[in-house]
Amino acid sequence: MLKALPSLDRFVKKLQGVPYLASKNIYRVAMHFLDADEDYVKNFCNVLLEAKKSLSHCSRCFNWTEGDFCSVCIQPNRDQSIVCVVETWHDLFALERAGGYSGLYHVLGGVLCPLEGIGPEDLRIKPLLKRVDEEQLEEIIFATNPTPEGEATASFILSKLKEKHIKVSKLASGVPIGSSLEAMDRVTIYKALLGRRPF
Amino acid sequence: MLKALPSLDRFVKKLQGVPYLASKNIYRVAMHFLDADEDYVKNFCNVLLEAKKSLSHCSRCFNWTEGDFCSVCIQPNRDQSIVCVVETWHDLFALERAGGYSGLYHVLGGVLCPLEGIGPEDLRIKPLLKRVDEEQLEEIIFATNPTPEGEATASFILSKLKEKHIKVSKLASGVPIGSSLEAMDRVTIYKALLGRRPF
Repeated sequence: MLKALPSLDRFVKKLQGVPYLASKNIYRVAMHFLDADEDYVKNFCNVLLEAKKSLSHCSRCFNWTEGDFCSVCIQPNRDQSIVCVVETWHDLFALERAGGYSGLYHVLGGVLCPLEGIGPEDLRIKPLLKRVDEEQLEEIIFATNPTPEGEATASFILSKLKEKHIKVSKLASGVPIGSSLEAMDRVTIYKALLGRRPF
Repeated sequence: MLKALPSLDRFVKKLQGVPYLASKNIYRVAMHFLDADEDYVKNFCNVLLEAKKSLSHCSRCFNWTEGDFCSVCIQPNRDQSIVCVVETWHDLFALERAGGYSGLYHVLGGVLCPLEGIGPEDLRIKPLLKRVDEEQLEEIIFATNPTPEGEATASFILSKLKEKHIKVSKLASGVPIGSSLEAMDRVTIYKALLGRRPF
């Protein structure tokens, strides 16, 4: 076997920590950086460090921002009385891309997961309850994912919101547009039946 | 839509240049770095820059090394009279992993590809011819990949080697171990027939 190259091994080990990178491609990605110009590599690191330095969480809704407040929170024409609770920035992004929502957001930063040791203190639940107390909110829309963890997180927050007397709703469950009933699981079909609407 | 975050956009653009990273995962990888500790990100960059700085090509065979000569070239028990010509470091790694080869290597650094503007000057063909002249070599084994480009590159080098009067061989083509004839393409079966050996 080849004798180990410590600096290559260390870099490969770092790359193994990057998610969504297939293990069979790790050496290829390592070679991409080693074969590149030194300027390219330095520039890559600078851009990464600069992004890490400039981006922080919006102090109101925890969306990513380069300033104090994010681009959603500073828009004056947004409905300041509705807050949509999402798990991550990806979900916020998906909702914004879909369009049609003109309220504010609150990014929880994950879901409750006792098995992984993620409790209520690790999510931004307290800041949400504080917003309900301090802002003139009229409705909270839960847009956590319809997974066991997402549902449990929404239920937990709901129990905390009960004494606040605020209107609470959640995204409709049902058959996605463009799919066929045949391809749906039975829970989705059951939920779609339960949630049927006048036509 | 969300207002752009310039530092995030720049980082995402950099990630788009990394090969083997699916475009649907680029934002997730970006979030992995942004959600991480600042120390982790700094450490990642340091390890990358250090690998880039410490690793260079072996001055004899162009394998990766942290010194002047690679771990293959400095082994005294390697057969110094046989050189196996490979396209990239990955191929060298695969051959070493397979075991059973005790000679030296020569890493070309790619294949001839006129469409992409890669000519003989862009590969390490001249250093190979120089090795044939200066070292006491007895055999060159071509282990370029059995693709049109790999075969063309081997043929080109072969034409340059003709006047050097050195023994030249290439890896056997045939049906890989563990596969079935049914699954093989006809060129492979034809090559396996042509290269049949006494049983």
